[in-house]
Amino acid sequence: MTQGGVRKLQVAIAGLGRMGARHALHFLERVPRAELVAAFTPDANERAWAATRLAPWGVKLYDDYDEMLKHSGLEAVVVATVTTVHAEQAIKAIDAGLHVLCEKPLSTSIELSQSVVTAARRRPQQKVLCGFSRRFDASYRDAFARTSDGHIGRPSVFRSQTCDKLDPSGFFVAYAAFSGGIFVDCSIHDIDLALWFFGPESRVKSVSAVGITAVQPGLREHGDVDNAVGIVEFWEGRIAYFYASRMMAAGQHDMTEVIGTEGKITVNGNPQTNLVELSEATGVRREIPPDYYGRFGEAFVTEANEFTAACLDKTELPFKLSGAVRAVQIGVALQESLRSGTKIFFDETGKRVEQAKL
Amino acid sequence: MTQGGVRKLQVAIAGLGRMGARHALHFLERVPRAELVAAFTPDANERAWAATRLAPWGVKLYDDYDEMLKHSGLEAVVVATVTTVHAEQAIKAIDAGLHVLCEKPLSTSIELSQSVVTAARRRPQQKVLCGFSRRFDASYRDAFARTSDGHIGRPSVFRSQTCDKLDPSGFFVAYAAFSGGIFVDCSIHDIDLALWFFGPESRVKSVSAVGITAVQPGLREHGDVDNAVGIVEFWEGRIAYFYASRMMAAGQHDMTEVIGTEGKITVNGNPQTNLVELSEATGVRREIPPDYYGRFGEAFVTEANEFTAACLDKTELPFKLSGAVRAVQIGVALQESLRSGTKIFFDETGKRVEQAKL
Amino acid sequence: MTQGGVRKLQVAIAGLGRMGARHALHFLERVPRAELVAAFTPDANERAWAATRLAPWGVKLYDDYDEMLKHSGLEAVVVATVTTVHAEQAIKAIDAGLHVLCEKPLSTSIELSQSVVTAARRRPQQKVLCGFSRRFDASYRDAFARTSDGHIGRPSVFRSQTCDKLDPSGFFVAYAAFSGGIFVDCSIHDIDLALWFFGPESRVKSVSAVGITAVQPGLREHGDVDNAVGIVEFWEGRIAYFYASRMMAAGQHDMTEVIGTEGKITVNGNPQTNLVELSEATGVRREIPPDYYGRFGEAFVTEANEFTAACLDKTELPFKLSGAVRAVQIGVALQESLRSGTKIFFDETGKRVEQAKL
Amino acid sequence: MTQGGVRKLQVAIAGLGRMGARHALHFLERVPRAELVAAFTPDANERAWAATRLAPWGVKLYDDYDEMLKHSGLEAVVVATVTTVHAEQAIKAIDAGLHVLCEKPLSTSIELSQSVVTAARRRPQQKVLCGFSRRFDASYRDAFARTSDGHIGRPSVFRSQTCDKLDPSGFFVAYAAFSGGIFVDCSIHDIDLALWFFGPESRVKSVSAVGITAVQPGLREHGDVDNAVGIVEFWEGRIAYFYASRMMAAGQHDMTEVIGTEGKITVNGNPQTNLVELSEATGVRREIPPDYYGRFGEAFVTEANEFTAACLDKTELPFKLSGAVRAVQIGVALQESLRSGTKIFFDETGKRVEQAKL
Repeated sequence: MTQGGVRKLQVAIAGLGRMGARHALHFLERVPRAELVAAFTPDANERAWAATRLAPWGVKLYDDYDEMLKHSGLEAVVVATVTTVHAEQAIKAIDAGLHVLCEKPLSTSIELSQSVVTAARRRPQQKVLCGFSRRFDASYRDAFARTSDGHIGRPSVFRSQTCDKLDPSGFFVAYAAFSGGIFVDCSIHDIDLALWFFGPESRVKSVSAVGITAVQPGLREHGDVDNAVGIVEFWEGRIAYFYASRMMAAGQHDMTEVIGTEGKITVNGNPQTNLVELSEATGVRREIPPDYYGRFGEAFVTEANEFTAACLDKTELPFKLSGAVRAVQIGVALQESLRSGTKIFFDETGKRVEQAKL
Repeated sequence: MTQGGVRKLQVAIAGLGRMGARHALHFLERVPRAELVAAFTPDANERAWAATRLAPWGVKLYDDYDEMLKHSGLEAVVVATVTTVHAEQAIKAIDAGLHVLCEKPLSTSIELSQSVVTAARRRPQQKVLCGFSRRFDASYRDAFARTSDGHIGRPSVFRSQTCDKLDPSGFFVAYAAFSGGIFVDCSIHDIDLALWFFGPESRVKSVSAVGITAVQPGLREHGDVDNAVGIVEFWEGRIAYFYASRMMAAGQHDMTEVIGTEGKITVNGNPQTNLVELSEATGVRREIPPDYYGRFGEAFVTEANEFTAACLDKTELPFKLSGAVRAVQIGVALQESLRSGTKIFFDETGKRVEQAKL
Repeated sequence: MTQGGVRKLQVAIAGLGRMGARHALHFLERVPRAELVAAFTPDANERAWAATRLAPWGVKLYDDYDEMLKHSGLEAVVVATVTTVHAEQAIKAIDAGLHVLCEKPLSTSIELSQSVVTAARRRPQQKVLCGFSRRFDASYRDAFARTSDGHIGRPSVFRSQTCDKLDPSGFFVAYAAFSGGIFVDCSIHDIDLALWFFGPESRVKSVSAVGITAVQPGLREHGDVDNAVGIVEFWEGRIAYFYASRMMAAGQHDMTEVIGTEGKITVNGNPQTNLVELSEATGVRREIPPDYYGRFGEAFVTEANEFTAACLDKTELPFKLSGAVRAVQIGVALQESLRSGTKIFFDETGKRVEQAKL
Repeated sequence: MTQGGVRKLQVAIAGLGRMGARHALHFLERVPRAELVAAFTPDANERAWAATRLAPWGVKLYDDYDEMLKHSGLEAVVVATVTTVHAEQAIKAIDAGLHVLCEKPLSTSIELSQSVVTAARRRPQQKVLCGFSRRFDASYRDAFARTSDGHIGRPSVFRSQTCDKLDPSGFFVAYAAFSGGIFVDCSIHDIDLALWFFGPESRVKSVSAVGITAVQPGLREHGDVDNAVGIVEFWEGRIAYFYASRMMAAGQHDMTEVIGTEGKITVNGNPQTNLVELSEATGVRREIPPDYYGRFGEAFVTEANEFTAACLDKTELPFKLSGAVRAVQIGVALQESLRSGTKIFFDETGKRVEQAKL
């Protein structure tokens, strides 16, 4: 459809869970150049929600993903289903000639992740984006621009954390069976950021990780933990280290420090929900966002708009899909190191080796 | 027009200057339930911009305000022209049966401001909103909700400032001829906030103000200054004090403290552009927004959406139009006190009196 | 007495109340070049404390001020008794040939304050210091040095506040009978700072003040309030404005902003007890000092050391005694404006006039 | 010597380099219950300084450590010489019947460190303190008290960093030959803090570390680096991770986070020199301390006073000497891991093992 003389990208969404519903509303209400025309979910409750919230705007609802792909005039699909079907659905959409915005990670499996990249390579005119939302965050972009300008000299040490507010329901214990583990599920963002700031060509020299189950011993069954620290050493003389946690009391605290030879840039060192500060008998207090959406909500909207523009204008996406596989590779290696308790080494060519090469 | 089964409010905009253009884009792109259908500006350059940016989306351009009001199907007008014609255009739109969102202030004249309120009273079904954007800011709303809940006891002292980054072009010197003066132009927001937090029924007991021309002596010609401090005393045993400045080096710093008998709430005590902090040889630094839009951009979008919803759903606007006249009254009194150097007194009924009544 | 070859200043202290006891311990333990040799207090409880805490170190205790002045070898007296006897005791000590460090204010009376200055002028070799402790605070000194260097251009607007934690005992209501009022008791520090940053020669053009009794209506009896705002306008085109409060929930918050034509310096915008920050279920919190000593403790020690050095080395004190009278003058004028509700005007020569001279 | 009836601890100092001179002045001027009576340094320049600054106060200067130990009436020695002689001098002083405050580390060798502990055990009446100054810092103590009270639940993850301002002179390259490496020289403080907050009985399960030479390639010769990250895993289900750097642009930034199951405590997350904040054309800026003394100066004074009190009053020191050996053990293991590139494992009994025990 067009508005006046403006053509709008015809978009469908797959998955209407927590994040899928948000993506749907973004494309419906906050992406002027896109028109949300279809939505798929296998979940009856989610379809009931969509019947009220999306259908009145002319969005057609599907309970069959393949059927949705045939929606007349469809140009792009947002894949926001459970991680286990990301790769399959993304590839189907690519093969159907559609642009794809796929939620991260492409898969918890390196091979499946790679298969999405391979499919995308066959269709170079189609845009395929992995939703590393932080890449669209205004603060990270500002930090990256300054880093690129040489403002902090050579970026050398990268510290980044993804720390969730404790969910007392323990939802994430059951979820751990499918999540790929805390490094693949949470730290994947931090790993992707490290590859952004250090350069996508950075070569891993070693990874090591440790973890504990401080609040959810049940995670052990899935080889997972609720707090983990990992180090990634690069052959270029750089270090990235990560902290991931599921037990923050105050709320979500995702933050990053990029330490260069001539300065440091910190993103979100002091989290806050808004600009309110309370002076009370107990001191001075501010609240912090309860979840990642409270921190990165605007970044998702920017992502949706930039994806749309790239599809319509046939311009480059801001980063390559192949990086998403590299992030999964590193995340998987960290998770393995966590489980085995050993340090894992690679040579300059990326081949895994038995011992430290100095 | 409708999208699917959803009816959209048909909106026109008058004035496409800096803020008018922003309003236009908000209604075009970020208000899902509104459709921008027409725009008026007497300025050829602004129309050229609109021909590129608005017309392709089906927005009809006018160079005659009265003609625009006759646009077929039009339901609402945003008045964002120069302050001197706000009242006249708002009243014309009201009389034409349209909803109106009028930029602040309604007028620098109390009488003209009141005439808009009077016109609106004759048409109770139409929504008429004065654009006190801070009322729509998430942080101010959070602060107000907490204050209303009694979190800080009885609000007693209110400190608020509107401080602009120094504009070396001296634009505001010429502007001072029409602005009504620094208290009517800048502090009007702070005054409105004080009336919000202290209650719209608050009765002024005295006002006093002083000012200086620290950077722009030319302002004196217009009875204006570049830095001013004013105090408003209320009969209810409350004090509001204001600072307005045109010479901030680092950027815009608008902030507020509400001091209650049991606590204090601060809004934007520590301004920041984003979440980036820089550690450099000179120390640790953050940047702050260059202008009010950098601080309140989102609030304008919320304003546009809530105005639209109230028009479509026939619900109450979040605050009364009459408050806009009260804010102008207080702003005008502060400006008079600034010019004359005297303190101005009122009795409990609002009547101006010659000396302090204790 | 000497230590090795180092001569120590022989110091006595008058008054061992809250602040007097602190002064005593500073001179006893933290001023290497001074030796506390005598202490006077009319209060038996305070003498009992001193018998335990001071006497074992060789400090002789007196219950008669005049007797103490005759202590053999005495060189300097710290006057930390109640404000009402500051001036009399300071003058007696001066006349006895002693150096004097007198707590602020010299008196709540301008005339009595002046009498101390007059006495000091007769004895130019003796050092007489009024204890404006903030002048010795490292942060204020840093701010002043930068301001003097022109870092913020011409200082033009000065905002400063002295805000005490609410003392539910209501002690300060009884105290109000003698304190001279909130502007003389609390804001005197802020006034002194304004005279420091704007220059001691600054000439007052007008003062105006308002106040409320938000928590202690009983203060009205003494013509006092628990929250007050005052503005001082200077003939040099500068403005200082002050806030004083007795009802902070979180603790002491004394802070200052110096706004220049090219920048701003803030001292203690974000108060804190120490460097600890707590992340809890309710958010992120820090505590703030409960009283002025928690904020300015180190400044008092610096004051004691610098006073001692000036006495021993016959060097200049860091600021002139006469400023203490000027601060009282302004404080008294603000308090009068608060009580009468009127604005008070002065001409360029400092003469009080009936109406604003523009 | 006594003052009045108060006996003072007779103290000597060994070493008058940067930190030794500070210790000397602390004991001379800021420890009321101590009397500095002697000082030793093999360095003629340092003795020249001492002749001017210490001798006039009655401090006798020595160029022979053994001679100084015979100083009549001497009760305690502060060992602040180069690290390589700490252990020898400390043991000599212990054997001479003196109390000892020894700068950290006792030695870069575990065995030598242990020999000091062994010597101290033979003389249980003598106080022997290793100068982990952060243990005396008010903020760390506040954090520890809250942690002990259960305020953040069970402390589980400990992040701590010691980051020096870049010294362009490259002094630390030469120093690296003797320092024991960055983990023994810098992180030793963080390690000690981890043992404090996690409990001295905590058992190390593994250590792993990586490092780079981002600014000083010459460090490689000494097996050292200028940036290092290390992880220590404990058998109690806890993790400590450390960052040490020699290349901070803005100044010293030593900080710590203690993450518990119910909250987090941060110490010095936002470093600052004082309470001044500057608003300039480039934004809002604060400065941070150039070195550790700017951060921990007061802690050294507290250390000196508490050491003195423990000696005079025969009370317990705030922590055991044996912890100093444990900190060196962990530091040495981290440094070995850094050099070899391997992860190092320990079983539950502290015995080193070849592979991860899960």
